Amino acid sequence: MEKTLVINSGSSTLKFKLYLMPEEKEIAKGLLERIGFDGSAIKIVYGDGKQYTEKLPLANHAVAIKEMLRLLKELKIVDDFEEITGVGHRVVAGGEYFDQSVVIDDDVIQKIDELADFAPLHNPNNLIGIQEFKKLLPDATAVAVFDTAFHQTLPEENYMYSTPYEWYEKYGVRRYGAHGTSHQFVAEKAAEYLGKPLKDLKMITCHLGAGSSMCAIKDGKSFDTSMGFTPLTGITMGTRSGDVDFSLVAYVMKKMQTTDVDAILDTLNKKSGLLGVSGRSLDMRDLQAAEKDGDQRASLAIRLFVKNIVRYIGQYYVEMGGLDAIVFTAGIGENEGAIRKRVIDRLSFMGVAMDDAKNDANVDGVVSTADSKIAVLRVPTNEELMIARDVERLKK
Amino acid sequence: MEKTLVINSGSSTLKFKLYLMPEEKEIAKGLLERIGFDGSAIKIVYGDGKQYTEKLPLANHAVAIKEMLRLLKELKIVDDFEEITGVGHRVVAGGEYFDQSVVIDDDVIQKIDELADFAPLHNPNNLIGIQEFKKLLPDATAVAVFDTAFHQTLPEENYMYSTPYEWYEKYGVRRYGAHGTSHQFVAEKAAEYLGKPLKDLKMITCHLGAGSSMCAIKDGKSFDTSMGFTPLTGITMGTRSGDVDFSLVAYVMKKMQTTDVDAILDTLNKKSGLLGVSGRSLDMRDLQAAEKDGDQRASLAIRLFVKNIVRYIGQYYVEMGGLDAIVFTAGIGENEGAIRKRVIDRLSFMGVAMDDAKNDANVDGVVSTADSKIAVLRVPTNEELMIARDVERLKK
Repeated sequence: MEKTLVINSGSSTLKFKLYLMPEEKEIAKGLLERIGFDGSAIKIVYGDGKQYTEKLPLANHAVAIKEMLRLLKELKIVDDFEEITGVGHRVVAGGEYFDQSVVIDDDVIQKIDELADFAPLHNPNNLIGIQEFKKLLPDATAVAVFDTAFHQTLPEENYMYSTPYEWYEKYGVRRYGAHGTSHQFVAEKAAEYLGKPLKDLKMITCHLGAGSSMCAIKDGKSFDTSMGFTPLTGITMGTRSGDVDFSLVAYVMKKMQTTDVDAILDTLNKKSGLLGVSGRSLDMRDLQAAEKDGDQRASLAIRLFVKNIVRYIGQYYVEMGGLDAIVFTAGIGENEGAIRKRVIDRLSFMGVAMDDAKNDANVDGVVSTADSKIAVLRVPTNEELMIARDVERLKK
Repeated sequence: MEKTLVINSGSSTLKFKLYLMPEEKEIAKGLLERIGFDGSAIKIVYGDGKQYTEKLPLANHAVAIKEMLRLLKELKIVDDFEEITGVGHRVVAGGEYFDQSVVIDDDVIQKIDELADFAPLHNPNNLIGIQEFKKLLPDATAVAVFDTAFHQTLPEENYMYSTPYEWYEKYGVRRYGAHGTSHQFVAEKAAEYLGKPLKDLKMITCHLGAGSSMCAIKDGKSFDTSMGFTPLTGITMGTRSGDVDFSLVAYVMKKMQTTDVDAILDTLNKKSGLLGVSGRSLDMRDLQAAEKDGDQRASLAIRLFVKNIVRYIGQYYVEMGGLDAIVFTAGIGENEGAIRKRVIDRLSFMGVAMDDAKNDANVDGVVSTADSKIAVLRVPTNEELMIARDVERLKK
């Protein structure tokens, strides 16, 4: 009864999933939220639909982890901590050090610490999680799975910016991308659906959620991706701006008479995108309803979102020199058939066609017609399972 | 013997061309440089290859214009200023006010002044030129031709950013584009070469010079373009960065411990692009020679340049839903056949093929094979002639 725990530490949250391995059976999942704030709470779903919630003070991530482990035992989800033989930690920034998941040792810890600059809200909390679990579950194999690792295969001209070369040498300025675990997971799954080896397919994966990114996959590897130095860049997101002109930002700062770069970064991260354009909501369901009611700005927000997906499809189609499959995943990608349809309709001139019945029914796998020149797939993502598999693979 | 003068005022330069109209015969052209600096000079080419140069103090643009007119008479290029019945002024920023060239009146002057914020190095000098010529040639029809006007037809989802909507309302933050006169000129010329009306063609024009931009032209109108709020954005340029991730800039500013946005903007405008990446030169001829000698960074700079052109071609191909012609123009686009070839070779999977003999010979017009699925053209640009034509059209 070996179990693997998958940990995803955010700035004020901690999500986990517990798997029976190698059976890949999910036996519990939970969310600890408002860590470090008033009103913190823990919620665990386990067994066959049982749910436990408790409001309790969670002063910091270390406390949160202790409470979580206590509840795993109290709720009899585990009888003995020795059952947990593996812990997989999602780590946001892996920089140029990590092109794959690794067993965590002192050197890995030091490098994650070093990379905190690239993900100041995430890497430090990832580290606390790693160190707490090391204390509490010393015998479990601890593995770090990096959001950026899959994109370390990008060719130089796809990861370099046309900024001074010294910025790359001194500051590590380049495209790192994100959502790598998700892009890789759905790409492999899509290849299974298509019955072909991934390495023989040219694929574009569209991870469309609160954060959204696109990935061009060629020869089984990430070839280009829309997130850049950080996850701010690329297509329109829930609250993030995606690509903007820097001179525009400089102009707005001048007009606002501010030199506070962090405040502007905050606006671009939290008050832009679908929310900022519509002035109404970051939820694609709200926006579609508002558009039907004639709300022009909700319509504009959706059109910007669709246009940005379409433009990256065009870019990657030509960069890769062809395209076999387009894959939609994550919150919007999995659930909003109308958005998938609006994207794919723009590609009809290329002989791409949606099977409307399959698309409307949100079926897993292929949702395009049999004679579509490029296959379109809907594939639910499962980053946690991907992480659990990496832990399993790296256990001795 | 009616003559039209075309004026292009830079921050420290003033370029002019004098045409015999409506014959469209260029009878003189000149450059006044280092205006406001030591070592200022004037150079005029006229007649059949005659050339006149003079080093003289040019304290400001008003002085430069007076000296220029003096020399036009002294060199007997014009006998009487009344021959000059039209003056066309290239104006960089036309904002949302101007979607075409206009005869200059007080209202136009006020609006150009208002838009100085968008082009602080250019619009004020454009205005000085306009006002000096109004004094010195009061009877000539003065016309303003805007670099941005051609792009005012962009659909909303192609000109809006996913930044807060208020930034558009309050500050006019949107995509304006640039090089409009050039894109329009070469597009019309390319349609002539192809023997079809421009409005029936889907076209991508690549203006590749020290400043570079791409334009998608559909239904005879600008549909999308790579320069954004200002000419900093889009593809890799001589010294400009093109598209960058704002979070990257914020990160570098933090590392440099500076809040000086203007200094960073200066680096992105003047020390990035081909020059910044190669650390060697912004001249594509130098870079190609260095690449042959094994210089890795020169090679990277060229590969970034080519990749960026290719990615915008892909984007615009899909955004427009098809593509009939790709047009190369300006310094690099007209003269560097090897660069055109590298771009077009990436499109071979789409059935696009270069006629190497024509391409190597830098012929005007079509340089692709007869059976290429998309026509490729080389069309020398002539913004000044376009401006002279607008003046002619707007003269009563």
